Amino acid sequence: MKATVIRKEHFNAAHRLNNNKWSSEKNEKIFGKCNNPNFHGHNYTLEVFVTGDIDSETGYVIDTKMLSELIKEHITEVFDHKNLNLDVSYFKKLNPTTENIAMIIFNIIRERLDDNYELKIKLYETERNAVEFHG
Amino acid sequence: MKATVIRKEHFNAAHRLNNNKWSSEKNEKIFGKCNNPNFHGHNYTLEVFVTGDIDSETGYVIDTKMLSELIKEHITEVFDHKNLNLDVSYFKKLNPTTENIAMIIFNIIRERLDDNYELKIKLYETERNAVEFHG
Amino acid sequence: MKATVIRKEHFNAAHRLNNNKWSSEKNEKIFGKCNNPNFHGHNYTLEVFVTGDIDSETGYVIDTKMLSELIKEHITEVFDHKNLNLDVSYFKKLNPTTENIAMIIFNIIRERLDDNYELKIKLYETERNAVEFHG
Amino acid sequence: MKATVIRKEHFNAAHRLNNNKWSSEKNEKIFGKCNNPNFHGHNYTLEVFVTGDIDSETGYVIDTKMLSELIKEHITEVFDHKNLNLDVSYFKKLNPTTENIAMIIFNIIRERLDDNYELKIKLYETERNAVEFHG
Amino acid sequence: MKATVIRKEHFNAAHRLNNNKWSSEKNEKIFGKCNNPNFHGHNYTLEVFVTGDIDSETGYVIDTKMLSELIKEHITEVFDHKNLNLDVSYFKKLNPTTENIAMIIFNIIRERLDDNYELKIKLYETERNAVEFHG
Amino acid sequence: MKATVIRKEHFNAAHRLNNNKWSSEKNEKIFGKCNNPNFHGHNYTLEVFVTGDIDSETGYVIDTKMLSELIKEHITEVFDHKNLNLDVSYFKKLNPTTENIAMIIFNIIRERLDDNYELKIKLYETERNAVEFHG
Repeated sequence: MKATVIRKEHFNAAHRLNNNKWSSEKNEKIFGKCNNPNFHGHNYTLEVFVTGDIDSETGYVIDTKMLSELIKEHITEVFDHKNLNLDVSYFKKLNPTTENIAMIIFNIIRERLDDNYELKIKLYETERNAVEFHG
Repeated sequence: MKATVIRKEHFNAAHRLNNNKWSSEKNEKIFGKCNNPNFHGHNYTLEVFVTGDIDSETGYVIDTKMLSELIKEHITEVFDHKNLNLDVSYFKKLNPTTENIAMIIFNIIRERLDDNYELKIKLYETERNAVEFHG
Repeated sequence: MKATVIRKEHFNAAHRLNNNKWSSEKNEKIFGKCNNPNFHGHNYTLEVFVTGDIDSETGYVIDTKMLSELIKEHITEVFDHKNLNLDVSYFKKLNPTTENIAMIIFNIIRERLDDNYELKIKLYETERNAVEFHG
Repeated sequence: MKATVIRKEHFNAAHRLNNNKWSSEKNEKIFGKCNNPNFHGHNYTLEVFVTGDIDSETGYVIDTKMLSELIKEHITEVFDHKNLNLDVSYFKKLNPTTENIAMIIFNIIRERLDDNYELKIKLYETERNAVEFHG
Repeated sequence: MKATVIRKEHFNAAHRLNNNKWSSEKNEKIFGKCNNPNFHGHNYTLEVFVTGDIDSETGYVIDTKMLSELIKEHITEVFDHKNLNLDVSYFKKLNPTTENIAMIIFNIIRERLDDNYELKIKLYETERNAVEFHG
Repeated sequence: MKATVIRKEHFNAAHRLNNNKWSSEKNEKIFGKCNNPNFHGHNYTLEVFVTGDIDSETGYVIDTKMLSELIKEHITEVFDHKNLNLDVSYFKKLNPTTENIAMIIFNIIRERLDDNYELKIKLYETERNAVEFHG
């Protein structure tokens, strides 16, 4: 019997959208006010979806406490109250769009999760903008 | 690398549920208070899900600003502060249930979106009633 | 020992903003798209604040179940799935702005509530527009 | 034309996580504070997803009022203001994790729903913890 | 310059409404399903309002981190995943209505807060029922 | 007849907490991770409360559209997608705590609002941290 467990966490970060290979004119044209060289920021809301069998002894797909600690150690501690472009190594060369942040978070959790689990990430940049990524 | 971008918009409209081919007795029996001939109304919340490849240069699946403007021009401008039955041509003959409104919105956006994208619509009539439609 | 009990209820209604004494030109100029002659509508969220002494025997300021039934009988049953301008007698001559709806709801509940209680109404027309009224 | 109708309901219940076949030491080790012998509780939020064809006459996949009444009669009446472990027969031998509660709710609704419909359950134990189950 | 800082926290607990001095018949008549002898439960949401001068050096009325830790140590640790009637000493003789829980929380925080601050508590038992208490 | 109109708006910004007169050691000790020299950021939610008489002709305390445009012109345009410390003149010398941002917003709106109105600002830095300011 398969089910999906969903855990929600939060982190607050600064970022700017910028492609290092483009001129500043092109960056400003494509990314508009999101390209502000002094950065802006968001309260990101992260939902992690883990799908697997319900264990007949525990009644759990995965212990939510363990899942929450994995997210806190590898995502929240690394991203929260940070400047994604300057402080978080994954985005030294990668533009921190919601799509790319979701992909990076997927990769970080995927390699720390048993292969028997399926994984999906949903990341809200604002209440009105979100991205889903499942590899 | 595929991802899904989700954009949320709002519109407020009046409507009534009614099948023009039925008697008023049958309409009242089937649709109850939603059949009120003087209309009632809702704050509709619309979520548009667009799935496609993450562009390696922009880091975008789709520019959310462009998606938001497409929704505003073709949905919000047409539906907001309107009477769906009387003011919106799509519902002259089509009963404006949440299912049918979601289908119409899907069709409007589908024909304005590149074929490489997959599309899903989620429409909330109230906080407790919603419909998903993906063609 | 005084405390305030807050009960939230919902109703969905159509309305238009219009001053019967004005020309249609002036109404359209002042109320814009809210003046649409075919009406539009909202999911209204109502919060009723009742302040009074905590009863030492029950531990209640007021029985929330009783308060909820009072609201349902005199507000929800009268306003829900209605056209405020056409179906609700209070607005035959009174423009159903959020301010005026909140005032009417205050009056309806005030005359059915023991004089020892203080009363405040908070009415959300949308998630972004609300009004508070306390007499 | 297929669509998915989603209906949200709520129930408030007490529970504890416990495997009757384990020692109390093992239960406390595995379930931590969720194993409190005196119980704790939650406001559960239930979303029921029903997928089927849009009926061309009504414009409905399913009458939300009927769906809501089915949920109220067979879920809310049975689970609300109850102790899941002591008062609800399904959990006499089954550990009431969110996964297992979602599975039980799925089974209860599945056998009362026409076979032409697909069914999915989403159950929130808190705002941050949820489970999806679709058989 | 005075301002009010508001900090939101959560705890999940079981309880039942019961006046020990009344017969079980009277308790059931007054408190209905909230009197279930096996308990039910809620996700409580707590908002603590602290009003005081904005410190010209820090720009803070109060350090939210300190306020959050005070709430966690004296409220969340004591109330979360507990049975209010059986596990929390304050309610051995006091009926754990939302009003009384708010009053107890006010008293606990009041005696740990500098006298220069004003204090208000808002406690949500459900999304639809809340209580405000300010002494 | 007095009522209070509440309008909600949003802006997203980067900031860091820092007192220019203190050493970096003291700033880090007092403001912790909020002192990150590379900035972090938030989705700020702003609620503006305007209290005044209900106009007997319009049924308005204030035209919400006008209030919304005043907020957009003088607050959102100035704060949104900005670095509060570097891009917004008000915070060149003032630490952008939620308290101070709320005070600045109050001052900006106060001097553009008729004296007959009372004004209150509520500013959410996150879903869990907010400040109220009314002069």
